Amino acid sequence: MGVPLWRRAVAEFVGTGLLVAVVVGSGIMAARLSPDDVGLQLLENSTATALGLAVIILVVGPVSGAHLNPVVSLGEWWLGRRDGTGLTTRDVAAYVPAQVAGAIAGSVLANLMFDLPAVDWASTDRDRSHLWLGELVATAGLVLVVFALARSGRAAVAPAAVGGYIGAAYWFTSSTSFANPAVTVGRAFTDTFAGIAPGSVPGFVVVQLLGLVVGLSVLMVLYPRAEVGVDEAVVPQLSEGR
Amino acid sequence: MGVPLWRRAVAEFVGTGLLVAVVVGSGIMAARLSPDDVGLQLLENSTATALGLAVIILVVGPVSGAHLNPVVSLGEWWLGRRDGTGLTTRDVAAYVPAQVAGAIAGSVLANLMFDLPAVDWASTDRDRSHLWLGELVATAGLVLVVFALARSGRAAVAPAAVGGYIGAAYWFTSSTSFANPAVTVGRAFTDTFAGIAPGSVPGFVVVQLLGLVVGLSVLMVLYPRAEVGVDEAVVPQLSEGR
Amino acid sequence: MGVPLWRRAVAEFVGTGLLVAVVVGSGIMAARLSPDDVGLQLLENSTATALGLAVIILVVGPVSGAHLNPVVSLGEWWLGRRDGTGLTTRDVAAYVPAQVAGAIAGSVLANLMFDLPAVDWASTDRDRSHLWLGELVATAGLVLVVFALARSGRAAVAPAAVGGYIGAAYWFTSSTSFANPAVTVGRAFTDTFAGIAPGSVPGFVVVQLLGLVVGLSVLMVLYPRAEVGVDEAVVPQLSEGR
Amino acid sequence: MGVPLWRRAVAEFVGTGLLVAVVVGSGIMAARLSPDDVGLQLLENSTATALGLAVIILVVGPVSGAHLNPVVSLGEWWLGRRDGTGLTTRDVAAYVPAQVAGAIAGSVLANLMFDLPAVDWASTDRDRSHLWLGELVATAGLVLVVFALARSGRAAVAPAAVGGYIGAAYWFTSSTSFANPAVTVGRAFTDTFAGIAPGSVPGFVVVQLLGLVVGLSVLMVLYPRAEVGVDEAVVPQLSEGR
Repeated sequence: MGVPLWRRAVAEFVGTGLLVAVVVGSGIMAARLSPDDVGLQLLENSTATALGLAVIILVVGPVSGAHLNPVVSLGEWWLGRRDGTGLTTRDVAAYVPAQVAGAIAGSVLANLMFDLPAVDWASTDRDRSHLWLGELVATAGLVLVVFALARSGRAAVAPAAVGGYIGAAYWFTSSTSFANPAVTVGRAFTDTFAGIAPGSVPGFVVVQLLGLVVGLSVLMVLYPRAEVGVDEAVVPQLSEGR
Repeated sequence: MGVPLWRRAVAEFVGTGLLVAVVVGSGIMAARLSPDDVGLQLLENSTATALGLAVIILVVGPVSGAHLNPVVSLGEWWLGRRDGTGLTTRDVAAYVPAQVAGAIAGSVLANLMFDLPAVDWASTDRDRSHLWLGELVATAGLVLVVFALARSGRAAVAPAAVGGYIGAAYWFTSSTSFANPAVTVGRAFTDTFAGIAPGSVPGFVVVQLLGLVVGLSVLMVLYPRAEVGVDEAVVPQLSEGR
Repeated sequence: MGVPLWRRAVAEFVGTGLLVAVVVGSGIMAARLSPDDVGLQLLENSTATALGLAVIILVVGPVSGAHLNPVVSLGEWWLGRRDGTGLTTRDVAAYVPAQVAGAIAGSVLANLMFDLPAVDWASTDRDRSHLWLGELVATAGLVLVVFALARSGRAAVAPAAVGGYIGAAYWFTSSTSFANPAVTVGRAFTDTFAGIAPGSVPGFVVVQLLGLVVGLSVLMVLYPRAEVGVDEAVVPQLSEGR
Repeated sequence: MGVPLWRRAVAEFVGTGLLVAVVVGSGIMAARLSPDDVGLQLLENSTATALGLAVIILVVGPVSGAHLNPVVSLGEWWLGRRDGTGLTTRDVAAYVPAQVAGAIAGSVLANLMFDLPAVDWASTDRDRSHLWLGELVATAGLVLVVFALARSGRAAVAPAAVGGYIGAAYWFTSSTSFANPAVTVGRAFTDTFAGIAPGSVPGFVVVQLLGLVVGLSVLMVLYPRAEVGVDEAVVPQLSEGR
């Protein structure tokens, strides 16, 4: 028997919360300590995020699959409908709110660790069409990475691969690769390096969902079939009964 | 039965496209955000490229072998002629155009993500004999890494090894290690950090092909024989029939 | 039969000593060579620490488990009491003093390598409540990483995961993540980048112990049971009799 | 039957040559592109070296063991005398000259790639007692890493571990961790970032040999016995007859 849903939802809450704490916290530290070079700030922020994300996936992966991202949960649900495996609708209805709540909690935690108000709405406007293109590419790429590994039985390398992908995508996409609707919402709660103005959130979420569609489309061309029993993202779950 | 050729060509197109998008896009981001230190720009660019390349090899490897590079495809074809395995002439004739087309598409995509004209011919002249020596060393080293791993049955570490090699070669070769004729062509389409003037492309391609010969020569001294069944670069392909 | 306790204590002494030498030494080098940007200093310090810590865990792991940290030893002892495995009280009484002595020796060694007085009490005051929150989060996260991997039979990835975690935590926690009472004591012996004023040590140690409690609490929710025979942190020990 | 000695010597020549080309070449690039911050130069140099070294060990490991360092070859010979395995005296007499010749060739190659005179004696004096202490620690640590992994049957992680160790040791030792007599000689042939004045070479080599003794002494305490058949540094050699 699998891990009960409540425990998996807690894992998604904790994991997404830690992820946003890493993203926001390292952004604050970088902006404070390297005030003269924004590129250096982003390098510090991206390095911490790549390492932190890989470790978080290792930690919560066996419990919940370490989606940490509504786009991944939706993708797994859709692929599972085709193949008769994966997340149920009820699972998705628990995962996504847990991810969003975790992301907000992570942002608040980062603010408090750095002696800032618990909630401070971001003022960084990110409403530009070329940033949306960047965000679409970032999300499509993430979806492709996650499910290409799952479909070819290599979920064991997913923690390093997903961390590495985000570490690169911070740089090669113009939007610095949010690529995650829950994290995008969480990042509206902090007016710091990683913040996004609440008014820019809906546009980002829409293109992230488009990125999911594009990513799955490319996946279907490259990996039309899943190997038997391996279509689990991001990492295989522990069976509770062991 | 193996993956059909059309699907492998699509994988080479997508993979090479993403690679050039990473190289060019992270170069634009680095030059914009770290205007005062070219070394820091290169560190940001090389870090993003190393991580991105490793992930791309993981993603398309099981489909096409993740050559992403005409030099690698030619090397595999030549080694396969000796051993009775590897790419056929028909495969090469599909892989190389897919790689070049992908590289151009990746350059255009990066330009668009950063709000630049889709095509902007590069103006960076790279026609210097010591840069050619750098490029020859860079390509020979890449060929040695790829086929040494393939010949000793360790293709599973190729994604990290090839990414790490390029991350080092950006720094230790004077040419910043293009080491790839398709990527070189693609980088002529963007007048940004990673660009190369069209007039410098033929010289680079010629020394890259010389680097292939040098790399294979060293390989033949160190690894005169392939272990049975493992001479597949970069990663073993999925069998379609599984 | 297992490795004798005296040998395991030596391993903890050597390992913790090298860890503090890495933390303090790379901090001195960074502050000397990059005087104009504190963020760059921290990036240099965190990169060296992440790599060094991972390697040290590889080296002493098979001998002593590579705790290098009283919080980890106490956590293993407490988890072992519940499960009938793990460290005995006598083991803890040898490990913790060896870790503290090693940490002090490592600090002295770093001072000497950089031509400083062997002991120079740190003057950096770190007594602030938001730093304590950072330290609590840092330690709870470390405990969660170490024991989540141990409880799910993945101790083989612990060296990279623990190194990567600390590399991220230097950045996302406001305290730069000491997360280790022995290392905290050792860092009082050097008045350099990584130093902590002796008067700030007790506060840090108290919140680190609170972090242990928080980390174990989250662990019990996510991983209520250990898989049989795998509850060994950080890496499985060699049997002496092989 | 094993790989013939001449082929193993070629592998040591090629591997050590590439290593010095990486060390010297990335040092030149870093000093040219980041003229305002020596710490940033060292970060660029250490990152390239860590990645390059790991890849070189992967490439030549199955042929010669990837010692690339007389200290490692001597250590393996000494440990093999005790255990009846490892390098013979004749092997050592071929390996060490190949390593030194390779190191010189690598330095010359780096000079030429960057449009400098093929040989330019270094002027950087490194004759200071605290640098010798740093070098002793650096070499002892390297010896401990290499043989701890070999003695516990984990040579497969040696490429990443040795690369990561050097990446850290560039920072935590005051000498920036040469830790290799052959590489030290090679680095006298270039008057650039990584150079060492010929007059400082003998002092460094003496403390490196002392570091070998210290490293082996600690090894004997932590790992008094080798597991059967695994005492091969750095990576297991291919059998020629396969």
